[in-house]
Amino acid sequence: MTGMTVGIVGLGLIGGSLARHLVANGYRVMAWNHRPHPYEQARRDGIVCVDTLEDLAGHPGARPDLIVLCNPLKAMPDMLSRLAPVIDRTATTLTDVGSVKALVRQQVVAAGLGECYVGAHPMTGTERSGFEASDPSLFDYALWAITVDESTDYRRFLVVARMIAEGCANRCIVIDDGTHDRAAALISHMPHVVATALINELTDNPDRNIAAALAAGSWRDMTRVALTDPQRTRAMVDEDAQNVEALLRHMAGRLVAVADALHDGDDRIIGEFFAHGNPFRDYKAACAHNQGETPSTAQIPLDIAHWREQLLESARRGEQVVAWPSDLVAVVERRPAVASAAR
Amino acid sequence: MTGMTVGIVGLGLIGGSLARHLVANGYRVMAWNHRPHPYEQARRDGIVCVDTLEDLAGHPGARPDLIVLCNPLKAMPDMLSRLAPVIDRTATTLTDVGSVKALVRQQVVAAGLGECYVGAHPMTGTERSGFEASDPSLFDYALWAITVDESTDYRRFLVVARMIAEGCANRCIVIDDGTHDRAAALISHMPHVVATALINELTDNPDRNIAAALAAGSWRDMTRVALTDPQRTRAMVDEDAQNVEALLRHMAGRLVAVADALHDGDDRIIGEFFAHGNPFRDYKAACAHNQGETPSTAQIPLDIAHWREQLLESARRGEQVVAWPSDLVAVVERRPAVASAAR
Repeated sequence: MTGMTVGIVGLGLIGGSLARHLVANGYRVMAWNHRPHPYEQARRDGIVCVDTLEDLAGHPGARPDLIVLCNPLKAMPDMLSRLAPVIDRTATTLTDVGSVKALVRQQVVAAGLGECYVGAHPMTGTERSGFEASDPSLFDYALWAITVDESTDYRRFLVVARMIAEGCANRCIVIDDGTHDRAAALISHMPHVVATALINELTDNPDRNIAAALAAGSWRDMTRVALTDPQRTRAMVDEDAQNVEALLRHMAGRLVAVADALHDGDDRIIGEFFAHGNPFRDYKAACAHNQGETPSTAQIPLDIAHWREQLLESARRGEQVVAWPSDLVAVVERRPAVASAAR
Repeated sequence: MTGMTVGIVGLGLIGGSLARHLVANGYRVMAWNHRPHPYEQARRDGIVCVDTLEDLAGHPGARPDLIVLCNPLKAMPDMLSRLAPVIDRTATTLTDVGSVKALVRQQVVAAGLGECYVGAHPMTGTERSGFEASDPSLFDYALWAITVDESTDYRRFLVVARMIAEGCANRCIVIDDGTHDRAAALISHMPHVVATALINELTDNPDRNIAAALAAGSWRDMTRVALTDPQRTRAMVDEDAQNVEALLRHMAGRLVAVADALHDGDDRIIGEFFAHGNPFRDYKAACAHNQGETPSTAQIPLDIAHWREQLLESARRGEQVVAWPSDLVAVVERRPAVASAAR
């Protein structure tokens, strides 16, 4: 499986970094970009650049093992409709790097490409964009989420999993689209809305200049993401709207509960509120404590009828897959886990 | 006024750092701590350590110009009741470094010391504590809030203002207690509650280990302050409960409004939400742009009947006082301001 040929759609920050990282790891990488301006540099980096998206699907006898959609989400339906007539569904597996997974799968299925699709989302990036900003080291030690559903073929899953483990020397967790999108809403999309609400609160305050002058580290950290391109944040939130909506209502409920307890002077509720996150504080302390130590590993023999559930349970325990020594064995690293909250 | 004698109550992180910073700037500094363990090092640092709090009030002919209460807020009533019988109300001005100002003034007035009090709050600190962690450079380039009310004597105010400008080479803004406490709630106390609510949300999530694995920079920044001592955060929130309560209700309203707009697919409201903080984004961009440049300055001649209002308006414009070249002239630095939100 080494020497895999990978086709990259879109040589932006992520596509460019991934292509260069895969070349550095000995993979054959072809790429297409909607504009050819990065091709000169990309060719010097060892990437085979092709003239049309359709060329990326190859021709009989020379099909890529994997096509990775690294285009912006809004271009996805167009890319899929152009690939659908040309892709060899038997030879080539299709994946993507989008930050939401349920929406992309819907679009893939709508294009009639569901049978060859496995979702993926590498947890990396910077606030910059474009091939000029690409950097193969963005994929050093990265964690990916691979997303699968009941129709996912195990062999195709393994093509993506090996590209991550062998082509990128990266780790992965294997989950379903809904779990991915809810988790992404929790740790990123919803907090971006909260950060934006904080700067709106300051902007509306008649003493905003005094508040801004007194602001220190806590304010700076909590509002940093609100300073990045609000249009990009908005798109991210729109694409995961249902999960973000639910979490915003939860958060509003938590804030009102504290407000009520402060109003009533209810020490018990305030005490419980501040103690409730102790499992996460303990988890972070354990992560800091383990830093620099080699995590312990375990082998998980996979049952072809239950591999999805086995890998999801592994992810829920806080494990991450680092290698596939044979087709039905995953090697996982054991990491600290977040305990459930004491009630 | 140079060569001022300052008495410091409490040689913890802030009291110790301030004492050492003042000594380095040529002030005579006396200090008392509730336990004498830092005295040996403090004496080597040039601080005159006294055996009892009462000694800090001095004796006829040798009174400190200023006593700075750097003790924990919870010790404030005890410190004030012990100082009240011994302090020379004519010779000595009383100030403090507490992070809430209305509560401290109430306690000072209750102790019968209102006439000699001027509030202060230096915007500095670390997450460490104790004299061992003290560092005079904590007061390099620091900004202070000085808090005054209609009873504040201008001469006493100037003692504190000069200690800040000349003894510390620091900047200040001059505001009232309510403005200070509302601003502190906005930029620190309320966001601490929000950060705690975020880690509680993760802790309660059945897929918390998956979310924690996928968490990246935005989550780390927005939850950092929730990882510090929750008892300290709780005390900070309790001391400013009314302002925090109001802001939590505002924030909850903003989050519910976005949730409703996502539910309804209301693009106009979502667009307005993400654009609303643009004045703060512009302000941060202006601050970054001006970094390294010397801010322009202006002289404000003060009217003894309206100095409080003049200085409060200056702070509201985003100016900071850097010097007092004569008794009724403040030199302010002009800094970027946050525009009001476009509606």
